[in-house]
Amino acid sequence: MALWYDEVHEDKLRFGAKVKRTLFMGQSPYQKVSVFETEALGKALMIDDLWMCAEGDEIVYHEMITHVAMTTAKRSERVLVIGGGDGGTVREILSYPHVKHVDMVEIDAMVVEACKEHLPEIGRAWDDPRLHLSIGDGLAWVKQSHLEPYDIIIVDGSDPVGPAVGLFNEEFYRDCYARLSDDGILVTQAESPKLFREVHFSLIRTLKRIFPVVKPYYQSIMIYAGALWAWIYASKGRKHDDINDELMAFTENRSEFYNRDIHLGAFAVPNYIRRALAEDDKGN
Amino acid sequence: MALWYDEVHEDKLRFGAKVKRTLFMGQSPYQKVSVFETEALGKALMIDDLWMCAEGDEIVYHEMITHVAMTTAKRSERVLVIGGGDGGTVREILSYPHVKHVDMVEIDAMVVEACKEHLPEIGRAWDDPRLHLSIGDGLAWVKQSHLEPYDIIIVDGSDPVGPAVGLFNEEFYRDCYARLSDDGILVTQAESPKLFREVHFSLIRTLKRIFPVVKPYYQSIMIYAGALWAWIYASKGRKHDDINDELMAFTENRSEFYNRDIHLGAFAVPNYIRRALAEDDKGN
Repeated sequence: MALWYDEVHEDKLRFGAKVKRTLFMGQSPYQKVSVFETEALGKALMIDDLWMCAEGDEIVYHEMITHVAMTTAKRSERVLVIGGGDGGTVREILSYPHVKHVDMVEIDAMVVEACKEHLPEIGRAWDDPRLHLSIGDGLAWVKQSHLEPYDIIIVDGSDPVGPAVGLFNEEFYRDCYARLSDDGILVTQAESPKLFREVHFSLIRTLKRIFPVVKPYYQSIMIYAGALWAWIYASKGRKHDDINDELMAFTENRSEFYNRDIHLGAFAVPNYIRRALAEDDKGN
Repeated sequence: MALWYDEVHEDKLRFGAKVKRTLFMGQSPYQKVSVFETEALGKALMIDDLWMCAEGDEIVYHEMITHVAMTTAKRSERVLVIGGGDGGTVREILSYPHVKHVDMVEIDAMVVEACKEHLPEIGRAWDDPRLHLSIGDGLAWVKQSHLEPYDIIIVDGSDPVGPAVGLFNEEFYRDCYARLSDDGILVTQAESPKLFREVHFSLIRTLKRIFPVVKPYYQSIMIYAGALWAWIYASKGRKHDDINDELMAFTENRSEFYNRDIHLGAFAVPNYIRRALAEDDKGN
């Protein structure tokens, strides 16, 4: 029998998909993990009853979280991904032949196992020899000061409840800064500026205390509450529009959503966000 | 008792809001009209069980459908709005002091009456003496060849079911072309490129057979299914980036969402749409 599963926001809004069958449901030490086969969007992952990704709605998120950094970085041979348990982010990074080493640190083995088994199309690069998957705590990982610097760090965590709370703290981003090379770029998912306004702005403020270049960017994700979704681009100096033409040509040619215009257009900041950030700057 | 009201897409996806109370529910000769007080988004209008606008989620749509044309038009003194029964589109147009005459042609008196009574904050300009509201058929209106030309025509109709079907037909747009001044611009809402893909592409093709300049543009609307929403900019020659600096400065200063970067960024076309349009061009 078909059932509806909804992501419910503050018991006031909901986004639901009709589900043909449940493929996996488990409780890890961290969270509830479910994989459903939906009628509209193919197989989909929910964590703690929040939609994370679906076969029919994952491309935009994964292209936007990776290629903005990948096409602007001076170097992008060594990349660290924190979170990203569905494998979509490392799949996009590993699409570039020049990438040499990707560390992926995901706290929840159950997410990785469930996605490997049920969402293999999203995580197509699990067997790539350049990928080094560690099941562990991203916060502890970036404290290891002996690590060779990363060119890019991508924080692909879930919402700031449960195991991802630490991924919104200043100490974590200071450790990330220390793990980045001199030309390094960090990108983090940054929630909905409309429905999670405080989290979004607080993350921008946190990063501004650490990185000289901090720019939010935006795009629509159907299954994420609030329409506009946000990421933040932070670097030690590299600008978001210092695009490497060769890498952009390579990516534009294979991406389903992302291209140069989308990259540049995503950095357009709506007036209500621009004004709130200007207020911050006045306060400093 | 609180209830959930959902917009349901093909019995597969739904977007719902919890409703405190029903303010209006009626059946006009054209459609079912409902106004609810929602918990998350204030008062909201549904037509035939599809979300049209809400106090807490109408600004983006109304700013995007009006200001792109208003800031690029060579002249914008005479404007025609077809549809737009909630009054948000004419409110934005009439925010410019230089606008002299706005004809608004809405087919359904019940929509206007329900919105005037229950959503007065959205339609704040009903009493503006420059606004000339006609309850009638937009298709018949643009057939009147004696009309003084319009500088801008905005087609703010609902989905292509029920009374809005004709607003997706070539004959209607040919009549609009004939009613526009030599520098005229038409903007129409153009559905979700993801969930109403065929409607979206077919409308672009239709307009390309009539107007020399046709450019889709995109933005997120929370209460509209499919995340990205589309409009199409069509003109007799005026380019979408021929921005009038003075009007842009005026609008940027008062808009809640729209600004120059948002205007230009909205014209970034995702790869899957760009490729489909390129296929069309090859076919011609």
